Amino acid sequence: MSIRVGIVGISGYGGGEALRLCAAHPAFQVVYAAGESSAGQKLGERYPGLPDRLSNLTIEKFDPDVLFASLPTGDSKAPLARVPARTKVVDIGGDHRYAEGWVYGLADVWPEKIKGQARVANPGCFPAATLTALAPLLARRLIEPEGIIIDAKSGVSGAGRGGGDSKFGYAECNEDVAAYGLLRHVHMPEMSATIRELAGAERGLVFTPHLIPMTRGILATIYCKGSADTQACLSAAREFYAGRAFVKVTDKPLHTKWAYGSNNVFVSYACDPARNLVMAFGAIDNLGKGAAGQAVQNANLICDLPETTGLEGLGLWP
Amino acid sequence: MSIRVGIVGISGYGGGEALRLCAAHPAFQVVYAAGESSAGQKLGERYPGLPDRLSNLTIEKFDPDVLFASLPTGDSKAPLARVPARTKVVDIGGDHRYAEGWVYGLADVWPEKIKGQARVANPGCFPAATLTALAPLLARRLIEPEGIIIDAKSGVSGAGRGGGDSKFGYAECNEDVAAYGLLRHVHMPEMSATIRELAGAERGLVFTPHLIPMTRGILATIYCKGSADTQACLSAAREFYAGRAFVKVTDKPLHTKWAYGSNNVFVSYACDPARNLVMAFGAIDNLGKGAAGQAVQNANLICDLPETTGLEGLGLWP
Amino acid sequence: MSIRVGIVGISGYGGGEALRLCAAHPAFQVVYAAGESSAGQKLGERYPGLPDRLSNLTIEKFDPDVLFASLPTGDSKAPLARVPARTKVVDIGGDHRYAEGWVYGLADVWPEKIKGQARVANPGCFPAATLTALAPLLARRLIEPEGIIIDAKSGVSGAGRGGGDSKFGYAECNEDVAAYGLLRHVHMPEMSATIRELAGAERGLVFTPHLIPMTRGILATIYCKGSADTQACLSAAREFYAGRAFVKVTDKPLHTKWAYGSNNVFVSYACDPARNLVMAFGAIDNLGKGAAGQAVQNANLICDLPETTGLEGLGLWP
Amino acid sequence: MSIRVGIVGISGYGGGEALRLCAAHPAFQVVYAAGESSAGQKLGERYPGLPDRLSNLTIEKFDPDVLFASLPTGDSKAPLARVPARTKVVDIGGDHRYAEGWVYGLADVWPEKIKGQARVANPGCFPAATLTALAPLLARRLIEPEGIIIDAKSGVSGAGRGGGDSKFGYAECNEDVAAYGLLRHVHMPEMSATIRELAGAERGLVFTPHLIPMTRGILATIYCKGSADTQACLSAAREFYAGRAFVKVTDKPLHTKWAYGSNNVFVSYACDPARNLVMAFGAIDNLGKGAAGQAVQNANLICDLPETTGLEGLGLWP
Repeated sequence: MSIRVGIVGISGYGGGEALRLCAAHPAFQVVYAAGESSAGQKLGERYPGLPDRLSNLTIEKFDPDVLFASLPTGDSKAPLARVPARTKVVDIGGDHRYAEGWVYGLADVWPEKIKGQARVANPGCFPAATLTALAPLLARRLIEPEGIIIDAKSGVSGAGRGGGDSKFGYAECNEDVAAYGLLRHVHMPEMSATIRELAGAERGLVFTPHLIPMTRGILATIYCKGSADTQACLSAAREFYAGRAFVKVTDKPLHTKWAYGSNNVFVSYACDPARNLVMAFGAIDNLGKGAAGQAVQNANLICDLPETTGLEGLGLWP
Repeated sequence: MSIRVGIVGISGYGGGEALRLCAAHPAFQVVYAAGESSAGQKLGERYPGLPDRLSNLTIEKFDPDVLFASLPTGDSKAPLARVPARTKVVDIGGDHRYAEGWVYGLADVWPEKIKGQARVANPGCFPAATLTALAPLLARRLIEPEGIIIDAKSGVSGAGRGGGDSKFGYAECNEDVAAYGLLRHVHMPEMSATIRELAGAERGLVFTPHLIPMTRGILATIYCKGSADTQACLSAAREFYAGRAFVKVTDKPLHTKWAYGSNNVFVSYACDPARNLVMAFGAIDNLGKGAAGQAVQNANLICDLPETTGLEGLGLWP
Repeated sequence: MSIRVGIVGISGYGGGEALRLCAAHPAFQVVYAAGESSAGQKLGERYPGLPDRLSNLTIEKFDPDVLFASLPTGDSKAPLARVPARTKVVDIGGDHRYAEGWVYGLADVWPEKIKGQARVANPGCFPAATLTALAPLLARRLIEPEGIIIDAKSGVSGAGRGGGDSKFGYAECNEDVAAYGLLRHVHMPEMSATIRELAGAERGLVFTPHLIPMTRGILATIYCKGSADTQACLSAAREFYAGRAFVKVTDKPLHTKWAYGSNNVFVSYACDPARNLVMAFGAIDNLGKGAAGQAVQNANLICDLPETTGLEGLGLWP
Repeated sequence: MSIRVGIVGISGYGGGEALRLCAAHPAFQVVYAAGESSAGQKLGERYPGLPDRLSNLTIEKFDPDVLFASLPTGDSKAPLARVPARTKVVDIGGDHRYAEGWVYGLADVWPEKIKGQARVANPGCFPAATLTALAPLLARRLIEPEGIIIDAKSGVSGAGRGGGDSKFGYAECNEDVAAYGLLRHVHMPEMSATIRELAGAERGLVFTPHLIPMTRGILATIYCKGSADTQACLSAAREFYAGRAFVKVTDKPLHTKWAYGSNNVFVSYACDPARNLVMAFGAIDNLGKGAAGQAVQNANLICDLPETTGLEGLGLWP
């Protein structure tokens, strides 16, 4: 079987990672690629390691079965509105999360909502790390849905390729860590909406992202109120995710490197009932589960393929 | 004036940084250096950039006026008990914090307690970053002394030089972030004790350190309960630290690189009274204010020198 | 078809990478794993991301068809001498290169020598990067086999996991570059022998490895004497490697990141006939083509599998 | 004594480092600062760690005694032509090296040529690392002035702050090394001219710079023809640089971290007379000796101050 796939935003990190995954996918055939800063190039000029069949890709017409869109937030509403209804779309960008007519593609939490849909909004990278860790606790009522504090640490590729600001340059990012987007980051609404979806309410969410000197990876350290102990949280997560291929539940402190280059998400918990404290942790590759990996997983779901197709590669270590 | 200085633990990162600072200090003359793994070497073999007067140092007798001890936690109680009373001691290690007969050397917060003392316990690196940011809020009762959550991010030199474990090796630390010491880190007691000292009480402190891929730097992101707004916190800090040379209060998100190689500590605040949330931030160089910089500042105080002597160098940027 | 595979040295970086590749290999089934520092653990405790079938591996007997050995240099002669003749061996370590009864596994240069063999010595990481770039020039007599200068830059994982020396620690490697092993590195004999094999002679080889702050990657910058121009070198390489899957010949300056996590090797050339100068460049992942990737390629060759089996994954970028 | 100093190009890395050094210099008082991207800001907004006297600097008139210019190559000819003759100028940028009326400020090699001059062209960062290592060998005729091969490794801050290209971004530079500017880098003419100046001739120079993942530091590995042995080279260098404060001659392999944040330059040699091979090594901080450090040293020379004034700080380690 061959499903013809298109990728919009091929010049960026998210689109590039989608290309990497589709190139190794047994059922996906990349037939269309668009990207502003690489227009007119053959794919092999932009990505030197590609196999010949992709390296020499000549774009002839727009006619894919599935379209991955990886455009900067704000740029995808108009072009995606023109995509024919028969073409299935996974929007890696941020414009359609909890938008009318789009399903929020939190693939490990609610795969059944995604199957058979034609328009999927891929979660943001921080929500992908955070919500997978929180979902079992919220669904099982092990934490309160209020006053949740998310302290997240991200690698620099999360800022995308377009940046070009010296603040994302090697010289300034190396040997530095900083918080940003205090109290008003664009990923807050989708996290708040998903918590409400899972627990029926949400109040007082705090989210503080930090930029740290690495290329890939997100660790979310999450402080919640609840009297559950560590074992109860681990059991709830193991039960909630029973049979799911990509969620790894562990009682050890997480390392983002465990997920490096893969679609896996690691979750862990540490609790102190005496302080009414539940700590949840989620670790992902921000370009894997945080972007293109989850997008391919969503594409598998909407194409009725096994969700692991083309995503079985382990990450790199070290 | 020449104050004869000794350094114990010269092979490690803390002792090495103390040497670097003393080498540039106009009143301190290093006359004694001891370090297990460098015993018998001349100083210049261990630290290639030293000026000749230090490079060729031959250790003849133990007779300093001031002794910096930078030994692994657990190793300094016995040897320091044998140091004569006339020799002033700054213990960079962790064995004498809040110990009988020792003052806790939080130099920017309570310099007057330190002046004239003969035994000073230098704060740990995480407390140095955290407590300087919290002190004005606690002293002015702008936050509650309970349920404080400290999420801290540290460079790898904080693990010391002795480590030698592959988990601190470049190959495994690079492209990785992980939490550690969950709910039971050795720096908790001194933080708890200092909060009690400043606010009269402490309850339910949470402290989560993270190891991130950089050599130097600590950023503490601190979540507190309080109804003060950002301006009130900034004003309190500016007033509390008026005239203090090393504390920089700013309304911008902090970068650890601002403090790189210096004894400065940067503090900032961001509040949301609607959520009863006060966020405090502290950024330091863990080997500067977090270790040897504060140790030299404490030595200046106990020797009746201006506290900035030998510490005026700006850090590196970028 | 299922070929039962064993890995010795599973705790180290090379053995771990062999495990990663075998886990995704359609014909290899890992049935035996040994590693001093992980003895008694299940595989999943050491490598958290593994699929369940490997994670719970219980070692019952030693009976593989193929054995990958990844032991420190000096440690593999005796144990491998005891391996039964029917078990095929790929030695990733350095003890059997150009040894009696072993073929030197330079898989992209002479695959036909390797097919059907039972004892293959995998090339060292520096030779893997260097010799692939030089082979076409030597075979076509485009450079002189004397006075070749190899200036190589390697990531820190090349030092292996056992190190544990603070000189390989993050704090000391970060923001540092240094040469080492001047004029007497252990990889010189196999490079000299291979040059002789290809060009009939070798004289005056100079090899200077450098340690640079990254986890994975080797770039070899090679200065040779010859009057060929850039196009002649590129053409020779394209012809020499026609039909070979893993060698990518390009006229652009190489980036090691192109090879990150893959078994690819990139080669490039830049010449100035007026100065009798031919510059050759080779870029690899030192754990991929420089160790476990080439080992799996060699195992494919000796098992009569297509050499690309299980190695088709593209590397990560960025 | 107070010498009024101006800095043009204050927004960039070179100008910023000049500001850092002047801020700690006992005789220099910064009275003028200009920089396109920071125009209208107070200095403290751009550099958060500055002392108050600099932080609040209000620029009132252009009337310095000494002017540091740190503008992109190509941008300084016209503006510097308008600077009054009585104002002494050190041009950190590349426009006046070996230009009419300007002395080439290779401060450790020929300080006597620089004293009393009014127009000094600061060497480029690669020449600063390279020429200091080569000068004693060339002056003493220990190597041939032809066929010298310079293989240099630089941190990313050498590309300047203006870059803004994603190729200098953290995500793409980290875990990568690449050569660039093959056979035609802009620093070649000044290196060639200086070799001629010291040895009377130069032929066939080869220079290959590499970008490696660190912020600061340059290591030059230099391959020369000559029959001198290691001791002869070390002795020549020690004699040549006798009494010079910033040049450190050693027989150990160099680490760029030794020079981190300082104006020091480390040189070392390794020879094999049997192969007619002399290897020379030079290690610096590219923003120190490679830019602002040497600029302040030159300013000291032309102002008849001791050349070490304000430059005595040791670098950071680790």
